[in-house]
Amino acid sequence: MKVKNTRLLKALRCEPVDQIPLWLMRQAGRYLPEYRAVRERAGSFLNLCQTPELACEVTLQPVERFDLDAAILFSDILTVPHAMGLPVTFIEGEGPVFGKTIKTFADVQALKNPDPECELRYVMEAVRLIQQTLKGRVPLIGFAGSPWTVAAYMVEGGGSKTFSLLRSLMYREPLIMHALLARITHSTIQYLQAQVSAGADVIQLFDTWGGLLGYDTYLTFSLKYMDQIVKALAPTPTIVFTKGGGLWLSEIAKTGCQGIGLDWSIDPKVARATVGPHLCLQGNLDPAVLYGSPETIQSQVKLTLARFESPQGLIFNLGHGMHPDMDPEKVQCLVNAVRG
Amino acid sequence: MKVKNTRLLKALRCEPVDQIPLWLMRQAGRYLPEYRAVRERAGSFLNLCQTPELACEVTLQPVERFDLDAAILFSDILTVPHAMGLPVTFIEGEGPVFGKTIKTFADVQALKNPDPECELRYVMEAVRLIQQTLKGRVPLIGFAGSPWTVAAYMVEGGGSKTFSLLRSLMYREPLIMHALLARITHSTIQYLQAQVSAGADVIQLFDTWGGLLGYDTYLTFSLKYMDQIVKALAPTPTIVFTKGGGLWLSEIAKTGCQGIGLDWSIDPKVARATVGPHLCLQGNLDPAVLYGSPETIQSQVKLTLARFESPQGLIFNLGHGMHPDMDPEKVQCLVNAVRG
Repeated sequence: MKVKNTRLLKALRCEPVDQIPLWLMRQAGRYLPEYRAVRERAGSFLNLCQTPELACEVTLQPVERFDLDAAILFSDILTVPHAMGLPVTFIEGEGPVFGKTIKTFADVQALKNPDPECELRYVMEAVRLIQQTLKGRVPLIGFAGSPWTVAAYMVEGGGSKTFSLLRSLMYREPLIMHALLARITHSTIQYLQAQVSAGADVIQLFDTWGGLLGYDTYLTFSLKYMDQIVKALAPTPTIVFTKGGGLWLSEIAKTGCQGIGLDWSIDPKVARATVGPHLCLQGNLDPAVLYGSPETIQSQVKLTLARFESPQGLIFNLGHGMHPDMDPEKVQCLVNAVRG
Repeated sequence: MKVKNTRLLKALRCEPVDQIPLWLMRQAGRYLPEYRAVRERAGSFLNLCQTPELACEVTLQPVERFDLDAAILFSDILTVPHAMGLPVTFIEGEGPVFGKTIKTFADVQALKNPDPECELRYVMEAVRLIQQTLKGRVPLIGFAGSPWTVAAYMVEGGGSKTFSLLRSLMYREPLIMHALLARITHSTIQYLQAQVSAGADVIQLFDTWGGLLGYDTYLTFSLKYMDQIVKALAPTPTIVFTKGGGLWLSEIAKTGCQGIGLDWSIDPKVARATVGPHLCLQGNLDPAVLYGSPETIQSQVKLTLARFESPQGLIFNLGHGMHPDMDPEKVQCLVNAVRG
């Protein structure tokens, strides 16, 4: 489908744009009353992800409400391990929980390699339906978790304060960890290639837990596998977002990704100086700014834009996802501030 | 008291040492059976902190067992807000909980300014007793939380996954946040000056939650207040440790602190190039390395030492605290590896 609003695609190629493209991580979510209504109809979060009509509906809600420059597929990074044979349940207010976890080589070997058009067909159906409904209005971003981040949940069995099981396995049994990461990478490549075939225009990798790693282990346990994914997806444009990855931008840039997501710990000026002028940067407003007054939002957006210096090769976004207790009115303030 | 083992003090002045000084964050703790025995006798964690004889006993345990180059006062960063009028309780396995939290200007104004030799006398008694018992064997490190980190607990009422209340207050009511930080800073300076008077040789500031902040807000909400503390304590040597602060080292260096603590996300080579040769660096082994085999521990220690390049101006440490489920035998491996 030919995309009409090409700002995001141009920004990813560092071409001039009439206006800085804008979308927000977790833009479809509980902070929107229209989302909560659909979520209630769905019964469970997993059912919402697995019902293409509902996933399509919530994907489009923020695009409609705020006239954003991209839609992002409504789904979850844990659809992949779920399809690989570790069933996940989402407990209200507690996050994801896996009944089984990965501890041994045998656990890794028992994992399935899901066919995206079979076990994950509901995601592909959602992508197709979203594209039919969008009619090329804005590009559609598909996504997956980074192998390291997905592995984090598979080893811990859910979120964690210290991720001790994960970090322990990495140092105790690096070969098991690499076997697991290789399996996730393989399934993720097939999953994302299928998303692209179904109509995704851009792919973002969410490396939410890459920041747990060290300067050396980040390269071998997270970036190496994202690099394989980026290369396998080319020429589809990819955005790599490692939360807490500000110190590793020059290494991330070497993957050949078109865009790098930034959290708010890095000064955009430093980020630009590190990666040079030919790579798109995405970010990096502290989401908590949305708790501030309209004046605070405006001044913080202004500061961020000023620190990026050039509007070229820039996608405006938050440095991480929206929180459920945020006010849609404040998001409108942010949108107005970016659009000037 | 004249200190006999001067390695740590020399390292803080970037003077040559016969051996790289070594201590470990949270070196006195639950991973040690002898600590667990004293903790049981104490009944509660708070009682352990508040009984100088017991605090002294656990402070010395790891120095004895591993022949480390520094003792660190056994206490908690929340003794300060506790004495300021927010009583804290420690719930086993859940961490600290405050019954009252800070929401308004009135809450800040109601805070007390504790006299360190009165409400916090138990800490000073512990410092004096430790010094009497150490007899100058190794230097004693005193400490406090950074004002931002202490404020985090006072606003949230405990730990948090998102620290939404804290980050929201910062953007909604920056003046309340600054008033709170100024009050904590004032009390912390008096508290740390009293620790020095009681015998602490070095002071470390633990800015555990500084990494929640942005490149701009870190400077105004965390570093500004640590800067005041560092300057008020001079000429006592200070070490500033911001977890997740790797992008801000050149700003931290400007406070005039003698040492900067590094977590494991930053390459020591990059850290040294950023701060220059005249500042001491402390770190930065990933604590999870201690889950690995003796061979892994040895190779990771070797890597860390190699990345620091020069043994001058270096204090070997972990990049964050020990975990309770770690094995003291592995700590011995680490000590042996550092000592070569």
